[in-house]
Amino acid sequence: MAALVKFVFLLFGATACLGWQNNLADVPKLTVSAYGSLWPLPQSVHISPVAFRVSSFGFQIVHSPKSSAGPSCFLLQNAFRRYFEYTFGYSKKLKGDLKMVANDSEVFELQVWISSENPECDSYPSVKSDESYELSIDQPTAVLKAPKVWGALRGLETFSQLVYADKYGTNYINKTDIQDFPRFAHRGILLDSSRHYLPLKVILANLDAMAMNKYNVFHWHIVDDHSFPYQSTAFPNLSTEGSYHPYTHVYTPTDVKMVIEYARMRGIRVVAEFDTPGHTQSWGLGQKGLLTPCYAGDTPTGTFGPVNPILNSTYEFMTQFFKEVSSVFPDMYIHLGGDEVDFSCWKSNPDIQKFMDTQGFGKDYSKLESYYIQKILEIVAGTKKGYMVWQEVFDNGVKIKPDTVVEVWMGNKLEEELKKVTGAGFTTILSAPWYLDYISYGQDWQRYYKVEPLDFEGTEAQKKLVVGGEACLWGEYVDATNLTPRLWPRASAVAERLWSDKDVKDIGDAYSRLTQHRCRMVQRGIPAEPLYVGHCEHEYKGL
Amino acid sequence: MAALVKFVFLLFGATACLGWQNNLADVPKLTVSAYGSLWPLPQSVHISPVAFRVSSFGFQIVHSPKSSAGPSCFLLQNAFRRYFEYTFGYSKKLKGDLKMVANDSEVFELQVWISSENPECDSYPSVKSDESYELSIDQPTAVLKAPKVWGALRGLETFSQLVYADKYGTNYINKTDIQDFPRFAHRGILLDSSRHYLPLKVILANLDAMAMNKYNVFHWHIVDDHSFPYQSTAFPNLSTEGSYHPYTHVYTPTDVKMVIEYARMRGIRVVAEFDTPGHTQSWGLGQKGLLTPCYAGDTPTGTFGPVNPILNSTYEFMTQFFKEVSSVFPDMYIHLGGDEVDFSCWKSNPDIQKFMDTQGFGKDYSKLESYYIQKILEIVAGTKKGYMVWQEVFDNGVKIKPDTVVEVWMGNKLEEELKKVTGAGFTTILSAPWYLDYISYGQDWQRYYKVEPLDFEGTEAQKKLVVGGEACLWGEYVDATNLTPRLWPRASAVAERLWSDKDVKDIGDAYSRLTQHRCRMVQRGIPAEPLYVGHCEHEYKGL
Repeated sequence: MAALVKFVFLLFGATACLGWQNNLADVPKLTVSAYGSLWPLPQSVHISPVAFRVSSFGFQIVHSPKSSAGPSCFLLQNAFRRYFEYTFGYSKKLKGDLKMVANDSEVFELQVWISSENPECDSYPSVKSDESYELSIDQPTAVLKAPKVWGALRGLETFSQLVYADKYGTNYINKTDIQDFPRFAHRGILLDSSRHYLPLKVILANLDAMAMNKYNVFHWHIVDDHSFPYQSTAFPNLSTEGSYHPYTHVYTPTDVKMVIEYARMRGIRVVAEFDTPGHTQSWGLGQKGLLTPCYAGDTPTGTFGPVNPILNSTYEFMTQFFKEVSSVFPDMYIHLGGDEVDFSCWKSNPDIQKFMDTQGFGKDYSKLESYYIQKILEIVAGTKKGYMVWQEVFDNGVKIKPDTVVEVWMGNKLEEELKKVTGAGFTTILSAPWYLDYISYGQDWQRYYKVEPLDFEGTEAQKKLVVGGEACLWGEYVDATNLTPRLWPRASAVAERLWSDKDVKDIGDAYSRLTQHRCRMVQRGIPAEPLYVGHCEHEYKGL
Repeated sequence: MAALVKFVFLLFGATACLGWQNNLADVPKLTVSAYGSLWPLPQSVHISPVAFRVSSFGFQIVHSPKSSAGPSCFLLQNAFRRYFEYTFGYSKKLKGDLKMVANDSEVFELQVWISSENPECDSYPSVKSDESYELSIDQPTAVLKAPKVWGALRGLETFSQLVYADKYGTNYINKTDIQDFPRFAHRGILLDSSRHYLPLKVILANLDAMAMNKYNVFHWHIVDDHSFPYQSTAFPNLSTEGSYHPYTHVYTPTDVKMVIEYARMRGIRVVAEFDTPGHTQSWGLGQKGLLTPCYAGDTPTGTFGPVNPILNSTYEFMTQFFKEVSSVFPDMYIHLGGDEVDFSCWKSNPDIQKFMDTQGFGKDYSKLESYYIQKILEIVAGTKKGYMVWQEVFDNGVKIKPDTVVEVWMGNKLEEELKKVTGAGFTTILSAPWYLDYISYGQDWQRYYKVEPLDFEGTEAQKKLVVGGEACLWGEYVDATNLTPRLWPRASAVAERLWSDKDVKDIGDAYSRLTQHRCRMVQRGIPAEPLYVGHCEHEYKGL
């Protein structure tokens, strides 16, 4: 007993049993997309019905003679291996549902042509990285042309999505022309390794999945109240005392390096977040005197509040700590948090009260917060890094550098906030509509998909300041057991919204492509959960 | 940014960020339970602070000299191995939070004493199986006494939950006395292998998890509209044509046997459901003429409705089919479904209209439904099996045998329905409050836990007719990628409700034990998802 039957093509509409929900309307028909299984959809795609054979024996991915990159470009060499495996490494692939007129001709190689002088093989990706590429599939040679390696990575993913097998297992690729580039430069996934520790294996697998979806930022919410798994070389006590376990539940410097390099190889930035002054309970365990002692009347309660903003020692610690962090994480940005500061402990503390008087802050604790943030921003500016902050830092009127990136996460008055932040000239990242930790029954991917990030009142210049968005999977209810299927393919919906053209919004077409894309992720070892009733040719092999 | 901080013991209350939910009130404090990590809680437990050592070297689980079972009882031999591994097979175990006064004495063996004449080693479990046991932990010998092997299995699980390690890794078990038996005889999990095919590995792992939670019925919703993975020997076309794939997405007779035996070894019944006359679209693909042709006016539309109830061929097919099914599945019960029959196709069909006239059913299609069900019940009764049905069969006034089990799944007017069904003298299974396919953000296990199955108006005799319940995980949105973490530990909440005493309902105590129980499941290889912020000593090793 579970569903009143409606036989709709391969799919069946399900009415919820207990009257709690009725999802029938939410389930689109599963149709055939003219774009096969491409995800996210490139900006311009022309697929001809002419199909060429591709053989895993002898097919090569090679550097074009015209390319500025060659075999010493390890990033590309690695990508060639990875995408060869993705393309041919399985007994069978998805048919892709493309129209096809088989042709005796064969595609023998894919030439990768980095067309600018500096391919950026050994660089780190940045928000300014050029991810554009052109892909021309013809026989005997297909060409992937990109100014930089970053575009080549995106194009290789696209290429791997174009190859499919007919019913005899013969691999085909249609004659195709693609010009592609991302709509938004910042396309991120936030993972939280504090509320639950995430084993390295989980993080790396999710970097793989991100690359499959053309994500380019891993926002690593690495520490928080609950645990401090980041192993600091300057302050080793932070993780020894503040992590769930000093050996099994920490990220060593080597782990962190591996994450960063694994991400770089996939064109993904690692933006680490060290959120202060709130969300720092775990910091206090390994750094005595850092947090504010809370009081009941005249007596300390033994509990602690946010970082103590009135002590010089706080800023000395932060200077040294962020010096380390800025050298460990090569990205040009550090995320400094700044959200949800609870004032009650500050209010209770007599020394803080005195300081407030001295500074003339009166009873306005947001001024104290601003005072603290201001000093932290100066410290980090000294490391030559840019910074990202949660929206409260802007809302509270903290003086921030013009190149600060403000992350808008609050759902209420969202459009107003976007208007204000961009109106003030700040670069903006949107995460409010994409808090994937919130789950509900049914096809919630559609809700994420339908978001239009620029749907707020503002000038063209203001809209240009919205450089992207992030899908956030906060860690209250996820760990190694359930994180990956909860994130994918729900985050894939956000990926297409951030990469593809504004007008790519046909839910039915998206549903068809995404259904195939999710099976492709499963085939590649990512336990991406189903969108609805159905099956994959190769089901997930794990548990 | 994700949570206003409240430092509560090892846990932090989280207020939801976007004002969508506020779950702070839902998160109990994580306290220490006097019952360690026991789950579900036994009926009577006395744990002394005196702790004995237990060494994995030399510790034995043996047949008591007084036992009616011996080494030829493969069921127990298998269980000894399994529980030895569970007890000692990990580098470290949970501390269990028990009070402990270490004692130099050691427990050298657990004697398993089957006290009745027939241990039932080679039997299949049934709703009447005796699952009671007594466990007495003392030195040098612990004794597990049970009338039948079924109780011994439950007691072995309990024993394995009592062993813990101190900080040096020394294994201990406290002097303990337990008398235990289930409150309800039928404690089931429904899995749906039609909406998504579930690889054998997933089913077996979930049988393991069921045993860890003392579940005793696997309600196998094996076929439905969407696919027919059951490979019938009499009608092989049913799966050849009706499954997602005739080789990779079917259950062969050997697979089915393996599931049944694997379950039997764990004291779990396998109740197969072959739901008719609705939910049968996939049947029609391999059995022409079985389903009702739908009409638009005088013209067949080419689509089909429920099983055609007016043809003799239907009943000939069903007779042969259920004859096979009743011999393949040894359980005394078959689940015949009977839910959610859509009348629109029947109404459209002129032959059915004629039949209705002939029979004097007028326009009351529920009479036609009853006519069909009646005949199916007679067919199955002829196989000497009992049957289970969804509540509609009762609601529609079908004449059913007095030993029919009615499964109540509709949430609205639930108490009224329980009163009616039991008032009519029928054995009842409750699943309405435990549809685990419905998900929501937060600690929904508490909602499942708080259900009191006998909370309806009725006599003592009526209440006794409620023999248990089932947690149902319908397959719309789950497959191998996400089924296991979505089911556990949410189904563990239902497990304790169905096993333990009515008065076991302290949410805080349950939270403490369940948190440890979920980490134990993770340690045993089951990716059970977290209840809230925190960590397990050994995180899940998979993805």
